[in-house]
Amino acid sequence: MNPPPETADRVSALRWHGDALELIDQRRLPHEEVWLRCDSAAAVATAIRDMVVRGAPAIGLAAAYGAALAARARRASQGAAWRDGFEQDLRQLAAARPTAVNLSWALERIRESVQQADDPARAAAACAERLHDEDLAANHAIGAAGAALIEPGRAVLTHCNTGALATGGYGTALGVIRSAWAAGRIGSVYATETRPWLQGARLTAWELAQEGIPAALLADGAAASLLASGCVGWVIVGADRVAANGDVVNKIGTYALALAARAHGVGFMVAAPLSTVDAQTPAGADIEIEQRDASELTAFRGQPVAAAGTAAWNPVFDLTPAALVDALVTERGALVPPTAAGIAAQLDA
Amino acid sequence: MNPPPETADRVSALRWHGDALELIDQRRLPHEEVWLRCDSAAAVATAIRDMVVRGAPAIGLAAAYGAALAARARRASQGAAWRDGFEQDLRQLAAARPTAVNLSWALERIRESVQQADDPARAAAACAERLHDEDLAANHAIGAAGAALIEPGRAVLTHCNTGALATGGYGTALGVIRSAWAAGRIGSVYATETRPWLQGARLTAWELAQEGIPAALLADGAAASLLASGCVGWVIVGADRVAANGDVVNKIGTYALALAARAHGVGFMVAAPLSTVDAQTPAGADIEIEQRDASELTAFRGQPVAAAGTAAWNPVFDLTPAALVDALVTERGALVPPTAAGIAAQLDA
Repeated sequence: MNPPPETADRVSALRWHGDALELIDQRRLPHEEVWLRCDSAAAVATAIRDMVVRGAPAIGLAAAYGAALAARARRASQGAAWRDGFEQDLRQLAAARPTAVNLSWALERIRESVQQADDPARAAAACAERLHDEDLAANHAIGAAGAALIEPGRAVLTHCNTGALATGGYGTALGVIRSAWAAGRIGSVYATETRPWLQGARLTAWELAQEGIPAALLADGAAASLLASGCVGWVIVGADRVAANGDVVNKIGTYALALAARAHGVGFMVAAPLSTVDAQTPAGADIEIEQRDASELTAFRGQPVAAAGTAAWNPVFDLTPAALVDALVTERGALVPPTAAGIAAQLDA
Repeated sequence: MNPPPETADRVSALRWHGDALELIDQRRLPHEEVWLRCDSAAAVATAIRDMVVRGAPAIGLAAAYGAALAARARRASQGAAWRDGFEQDLRQLAAARPTAVNLSWALERIRESVQQADDPARAAAACAERLHDEDLAANHAIGAAGAALIEPGRAVLTHCNTGALATGGYGTALGVIRSAWAAGRIGSVYATETRPWLQGARLTAWELAQEGIPAALLADGAAASLLASGCVGWVIVGADRVAANGDVVNKIGTYALALAARAHGVGFMVAAPLSTVDAQTPAGADIEIEQRDASELTAFRGQPVAAAGTAAWNPVFDLTPAALVDALVTERGALVPPTAAGIAAQLDA
């Protein structure tokens, strides 16, 4: 079952209709709220690749619903021989974006769910809905555990968008911020604009405005001097993948924030569900970092910014070593600081 | 006399015509090369405030030419009583932007030049042209001294635009890069896009392309992971003001680069003429940091990016403590590292 419309957040990235998945087109927010209807796994894979939907947990859920659509379509068209086509669809979904581990994690859960099922289509859909419910519940737990770490009286800084739009609802880092705001622990939020996609400017500022949480946008490069000013108590970010040793791969720019936080004794918190933790990857250096097209930097909404022919280096994510992470907060609680043993214990609990 | 058109760079920010100053409108580069004609000090002050011209040395030179226009106009209209109006014009020019010290430094030089002059208008114009020539010569000296510090074989990273467009010609940090490229000491240049004005994307990438120097643009937030990769030997930036102790106020985002450079053992070089050094200001914390309008972050070319009503924190500059600066390079040579004594000795030389 989908989360009820009246959760703490008024925004969502996905709507499931049984025979189709609707995704809010995050490329057009906040100025237009356009829902894109996907009635096949191929359509979902394209939407993930083109960033209609983004944010590691939301990508995982979209892929899960895409896999449910695949099970339904393959069963209907290919009967008993449906599995080959289904596996082909799963591979297409898995390849849509390389860095977030939630995607392959969610597909594996769907694969398990259909294994012994009498009605694979129904089993896959039920599994996707369960993953969605679990993600929302995990985010509420993360929010509570993260908020408890924040001493009242200062602002927090966040990066990219980790809210309801990036997840099954409520948010990871933004879930911590929602919880901390509700508990009176923070006075305001600084949100980096998050180049090149401007998820902070377009999505996070919008989500915070809808909640009535006071927020100010800043250029990514301005964060270090903001942290030097002493007004920020915690930097709170999400993750696209956490390695077994606690290294964090997250939106490009995260590592610079971690360095600046450490230089000024500001806490650095990573909020992510355990579905983002990749026990199979020992350290962050083993994680593939997606590179995207130069045009994300050389143009803006199709208008050229840089001179024609300008080259770009455009990684989507960067690696923050575990040693710079003061707290890793999952649905099973806060690891302060994260260690390989602590992470393994949470995964095994 | 203006620098000849065939200097090492093919770009310039200012053209002096005796009765008017032409400024290339840097807000419209690189797509349109529009020259704005200013025939009064008021027009020059407006152009500085609105960032038609930017870059500390170029602002200083524009103000000097504006003061020359003021001397001419006030002498013509007010005869022997010209000085009050002239001082009023100087105050207007000085107030156009608060952070770069070159502005008040240049105006002081103009003020001295007219003090005993028989023909104040001619003396002021001659002084402005001399400052322009001196700035160009200083930049060539800075380029040679900075390039000598660079061991061949790696790339360099630069921030904002410090080239011919930001100065009287050739550039400060970009002058070092031009010299190092000419000497075969660097293989390529990384240029941060430099939010919110995108001086890196719009101006630096364009200047480098005109010189045939291979360059790649990156998001400001991506610089820390680039430095972690080991491919960059030096971060090279300019300055808007250097305090007597070596603290550096420069374009927002500089401090984050300095922190990342130090974390990875990458050299951090500040290239600036002595006209940017403010002996009257003991430390960087005493320097006023200009804040600009939220719309620079919430909109792009007049199109809204963030939701309506989004607030922003938009400082134009930040402070990098002297302790993070490995080399300060002026026209009198490299201070490695900069110290108050070393700076004082260069100023007194």
